[in-house]
Parts: sequence; C-alpha cells; structure tokens
Amino acid sequence: MGVITLLTDFGTADAYVGVMHGVILRINPTATVVDLSHGIAAQDVAEAAFVLSIVYPYFPVDAIHVIVVDPGVGSERRAIVVRTPRGTFVAPNNGVLSYVLASESVSQMVHLSNSQYWLSPVSNNFHGRDVFAPVAAHLSLGVALSDLGPALNDPMRFEIAGPHVREDGSILGQVMHVDRFGNLITNVSRESLPAGRLVRVHIEGQDVVGPLKAYALAADGELLALIGSEGYLEIALRNGSAAERLEVGRGAGVVVTPVADSR
Amino acid sequence: MGVITLLTDFGTADAYVGVMHGVILRINPTATVVDLSHGIAAQDVAEAAFVLSIVYPYFPVDAIHVIVVDPGVGSERRAIVVRTPRGTFVAPNNGVLSYVLASESVSQMVHLSNSQYWLSPVSNNFHGRDVFAPVAAHLSLGVALSDLGPALNDPMRFEIAGPHVREDGSILGQVMHVDRFGNLITNVSRESLPAGRLVRVHIEGQDVVGPLKAYALAADGELLALIGSEGYLEIALRNGSAAERLEVGRGAGVVVTPVADSR
Amino acid sequence: MGVITLLTDFGTADAYVGVMHGVILRINPTATVVDLSHGIAAQDVAEAAFVLSIVYPYFPVDAIHVIVVDPGVGSERRAIVVRTPRGTFVAPNNGVLSYVLASESVSQMVHLSNSQYWLSPVSNNFHGRDVFAPVAAHLSLGVALSDLGPALNDPMRFEIAGPHVREDGSILGQVMHVDRFGNLITNVSRESLPAGRLVRVHIEGQDVVGPLKAYALAADGELLALIGSEGYLEIALRNGSAAERLEVGRGAGVVVTPVADSR
Repeated sequence: MGVITLLTDFGTADAYVGVMHGVILRINPTATVVDLSHGIAAQDVAEAAFVLSIVYPYFPVDAIHVIVVDPGVGSERRAIVVRTPRGTFVAPNNGVLSYVLASESVSQMVHLSNSQYWLSPVSNNFHGRDVFAPVAAHLSLGVALSDLGPALNDPMRFEIAGPHVREDGSILGQVMHVDRFGNLITNVSRESLPAGRLVRVHIEGQDVVGPLKAYALAADGELLALIGSEGYLEIALRNGSAAERLEVGRGAGVVVTPVADSR
Repeated sequence: MGVITLLTDFGTADAYVGVMHGVILRINPTATVVDLSHGIAAQDVAEAAFVLSIVYPYFPVDAIHVIVVDPGVGSERRAIVVRTPRGTFVAPNNGVLSYVLASESVSQMVHLSNSQYWLSPVSNNFHGRDVFAPVAAHLSLGVALSDLGPALNDPMRFEIAGPHVREDGSILGQVMHVDRFGNLITNVSRESLPAGRLVRVHIEGQDVVGPLKAYALAADGELLALIGSEGYLEIALRNGSAAERLEVGRGAGVVVTPVADSR
Repeated sequence: MGVITLLTDFGTADAYVGVMHGVILRINPTATVVDLSHGIAAQDVAEAAFVLSIVYPYFPVDAIHVIVVDPGVGSERRAIVVRTPRGTFVAPNNGVLSYVLASESVSQMVHLSNSQYWLSPVSNNFHGRDVFAPVAAHLSLGVALSDLGPALNDPMRFEIAGPHVREDGSILGQVMHVDRFGNLITNVSRESLPAGRLVRVHIEGQDVVGPLKAYALAADGELLALIGSEGYLEIALRNGSAAERLEVGRGAGVVVTPVADSR
C-alpha cells in the first residue's frame, strides 16, 4: 500500500505523467498513485506551492507528495525530501515547499544524493521520472530518509506573500490562483478579516461587498466575494468567470476595507 | 476494496479532483477511485445526467458513483444517496439522477443529514470535498444508507427530453452531448427508429441519410449518421468535427424521417 | 493485481476513458489502470506509436498496454495482442505497434476472434470499450493468448521514420512529437549523432547549436538543442515554446550537421 501524489506542470496531453506512474508501479506495484493536478502554469513554482498548501492536509498523513515544477532541472539545484507529521514531500529545492515549511514541524529533511534509488541513467531534464518518482516509490516501501542522502538544514524558501494590514485597517492582498471557473482566490485568509463584519473588496476598479455565504446567494451575472472552500477570500462571478469579467489573473492586487457600521 | 467514481464539472487543471481522492483515501485507503469525467460543462446538470446514464451500466454493480455538478451548493438544496441494483449514487438533489431514476428500480433512497460522516467544518461551496467524497468513502466501507440520513421519497427529477414522434411518423429529437471529436449525440435511441429502414436526418439545413454501420464507411470529410456506441443516433463527420461543420452544439434540433421505400 | 495502461486519442472531457476503467474493473476488480495519455492527436497512429515506444519500457514487464487510436474501427481491420518480454500490447492492427515490433522479440502474437472475452453486443465504433478493455482485463487475470484467437504472423507495420544520414555526414530527421511545453522531439537519436561533437541543427530557417546538457543552460527566450529525456534530439526554447517561435509542428524537417572542429 501507500499513497503517492503527483503535482506537476506537465499537463496531461503528453505521457510524462503516465510514465511516472509506470516507474512507481515497477518499484512498488501496490502503490496508489493520485494525480493532484498537472495544470500548474509552466514553471510557476509559487502557484504550485500555494496549490500544494491547500491540498495536502486532506490526504493520509503517511502519503508521499511528489512535486515536479522545476525550472532549474539539470542545473545545480538540489532535490530534497521533507518529512512532517502531516505528510512527506519529495521536491526540487526551489521554494515549492515554502508553505509546508511555514506550517508544519519538520521531523526530518534530506537532500537526495544516493543514486542507488534513482533510475539509471538519469536524464538531464526529466528528474520527475528518473529521480523523484523512484525515490517516492522507495519511500512508500519503507526506505529511510537517511538512506537517500545527507541531512539538509537550509531548504530554499520564499517569503509567503501574506496579506499586508495597513494602519487604517485596510488589507492589501493579491490573487494567488485562478481556477477553471474563473474564481479569483486571494491570499487574504478568513482569520485576517474582521470577524463577522462586511468588507468591501476593491479589485481592478470595482468594489465588491462580502463575504457572502455561498455562490448561490448572488444574482446571476453578479460579482461576489466569499470565503472560499480553502479558507481564503475569493472573488467570483455568479454563473460566469470573474477573471474574464475583470480581465485579471494571478498577482492582481486587492484592497479589503471593513464596511462602516451603518447603525 | 470498493470502486468509487467521480463525475464533475471541475476540469482537471485545478486540484479540486485530487483533493477528493485524498479525502476518500484517508477514510478508505483501499478504495479504487475512477475519474469518470471532469469535463461536464460548468453547472450543466442535464449534460451530467445524460453522460452518467450512458456510463454507469458498465461499472460493477457495487460501485459508488459520486456526481458533483451542483449550481445550488450552499443553498437549501439537499444531497442524496440513491441505491439501485446497478449502482449506488451520491449526488445533489437537483435532477442529475433523472435518468437513473427512470431506468432503475430504487432499493433505498436517503437525504444526507448526519454530519458525522462529513468533514468538519463543511465549507459552503465545496460539498464535493466536504460531504460527497467522505460519504462515498464511508459507503464503500459498508456504512448503511439509513445511518446517513432519513428516507427520501420525492427526489427532484426533470422530464427526460425524449424524442417526440409526430403524426406523420417523423421524429423530433435534439443533440444531448458533443464529444471531443465533434460527434453530435442525440436523444433518438435505436429503439425509436424504424427497424431496418434508412432515415433522413435533418439538422441545421442539411440532410444526412443513415444509419451507417461505422465511421469508416463514410467518405473523407463527409457527414454521416450512425447509431453510436451508446445506442443513440449520432451525426458525425468522417475525419472531422460535425459540430464545427454544422456550427451547432448541445440542444440543436434534429428531425428524423423514414426514407421512402424506392422499389 | 495487474497493471493495465490506456493510450488513446479520446481526450479526457468525455467519459470514454472512464467507461473503459469501469469495464476493466468489472472483470478484474484488483487491476491497477493507468492513463498513459489520452492526448494523442485524433486518429494519429504514427504519433501514438512513437509515444508508446518511449513509455512502455518504464512499466513493469507484466503490464498490459491498451492502445486505442483506431481510424479503422468498424471496418475489416483486425485487433491483435502482441506479447513480448517487456510488455503485452492490445491494439488495432494498424501499425501502432511498429516500434514495439522493431525493438522487442515477440514471444506470442494473436488476432482477436473469440468474442467470449468481449462485451456483448459489440458496438461498431467503440471497440476500446467493447473489445480492447475486456480483453486486457481477462489477460490480467491470466487468460492465455491462445484462448483469444488464432496466431498471427503478419501484423501491420509501417516503416519507422528513422533519420537519414547523407553522404556528407549530415543527418535528415523530422519532428515526431510536440509536447505541451512546445518542445520539438525529433527522431534523431543520441546514437545517430557524432559522439561528443557539437552539431548545428537547421530547422525552419534557423540554426541552433547543441546539444546542451539541460534547459537551464540556455538564456531566457533562447532556442536550444539538447538530447531529451527519451534519448532523442529535441529543439526547445528556454522559458517558452519552440513550436510557437518557429511555427512548426509534427513532421517538420531538421538537418543536423557536425560543427567543424575549430582548433
């Protein structure tokens, strides 16, 4: 047994993902391989890091998560394994685990150097197949992290683009992910909003008041703000795409202001 | 063991589907989760209902089918489980099971109210993850329907858009689904056609005579009509897209007329 | 147990792939079904053959590979099973196994005629569901090839479009596959290149010198040539799409010339 998830920017038109399944099953025929998403924008490490952060908590704690969004493949960047009480992560050392490292206590961390657990030969540009997949399969069979390489103390991390609260109480945030419905998922968490108060969300010249409890509470074709299923402020369009309506994408800024109590 | 299928309008670019796999595997690590399709048009309950109807008969009868095409999520619509001798279905109560209810004898039917089998907290807009997936996983472990909520007698159903036979013997039908090849799958079933007779299919100003036995019998670039693999009249274009050629989509009308015997 | 892979041109928007999973699991509930790719260009047998050739060697040798790229479905073309020491292949007899037949020693080869192992009735246009999937499932349960139909001696094969070496030592090749990143994968193998020498790759009026060791060694926005992870010469664009930059696709010609030693 053993659950191994794959999160990549490979798309699904090619067989790059399929071949990783094959490599894993050849080493551990009883592994359950789950495709988390292969729709990360090409080489967008920050998006992959965010998507990973909202997904891994729903998996078994002994799951092994493989992330291959790896612009530096073939350069000197290292590959790493990070073990936490809420999952084990196999990834390039490029910051893609920044949220995991910020949220979880790390029990063990190594960088991959023992080629005994890799395919041979290793290509210069498909470490997903030649390094990450076989390492994950061996981990699912119980291989110890310490067998994979030496301990690592300084994994690369980028600063989490947290929302910024200004002196007047307004919050500056940004769009972290645009989903297939055109919903704009920001980095403004439920916790950073004033509890139980309405806010005005300013984005691309428009003001949206919220949060509403559900999409279904907005009128057809109307912009709405709500706390999305991941716990972040989200701008959506009832029965349409907020991204298309507002013509914005990942990185767009939002300003959130508490609505004055009108009593 | 236990097969659980997922049919949604989530697309595959985001991790919405992946996270449902995770929720299921955390509850039942031995479940086999199958992605039926995530390409249903956004919120198109009628399309999901049709696609489901042509697919579930091919699965094991103890499979659990989860359908999440759910424009009303977060409103007062209920979620339901319907058990039949040919499959168990977990879905919003929005008509998406209309074909199943029309074709199968229902052995048990409940609406979901026991939150003990849900994730906690339940978000307002992702019941696929928080309600449907965990309920399906618990069902695959043998939880009884009666534990999930009270019996339901009046599931929502829409009228099946069956073909309409006119007094002159001609048949009015419509396009129910356009597949990735551009084939136009109608609701005119094999059984509703005059047995062993040629028909003329009128669609968007064009007449197509059929049914042919196979795509390969038409000339390159030629429109053809055949009985598709699901048992419905289908308009196709040999080595091309009938949808593009005719510039029609779901809902387009067809008129089917028996061809006069020319002897 | 038993790994069954699916390689088709069905796309993933429809439920055609999902239903094949269902048919397999109904026959062998313990099968592990892997989606190799469903993004083969519609009816492109040559592309499917090439993609298969670079993928199957990474799977367990007892895996069963099902290929459904089948323009002749419903005509008189046969369906076949080819067993080799590196995998068993279920496919239409249309040349899609040409690379496999060129690389592997065949231990057994039959054409499918015993309808006892098919669904009943068999549709005229979805043999993936009605013939290939059930046959693969039965094979994974140990059914002998000889039970499926009579021996076959003359499977259809097309000539492998190998690169052509000219008298002056230059190599004529072509683009076999364009991946989702826009990388152009040619049929010029590592072995056909002069060992340890730089080459000039001429494509669509541009010259690219290579091979580089990795994408990361090229400057941003620069065309590069490298030996791809499959062992073939590949033209790529650092942080972009070579296919878009050069406006070429599958079938485009390349001329590879050794670079004169400049000492």
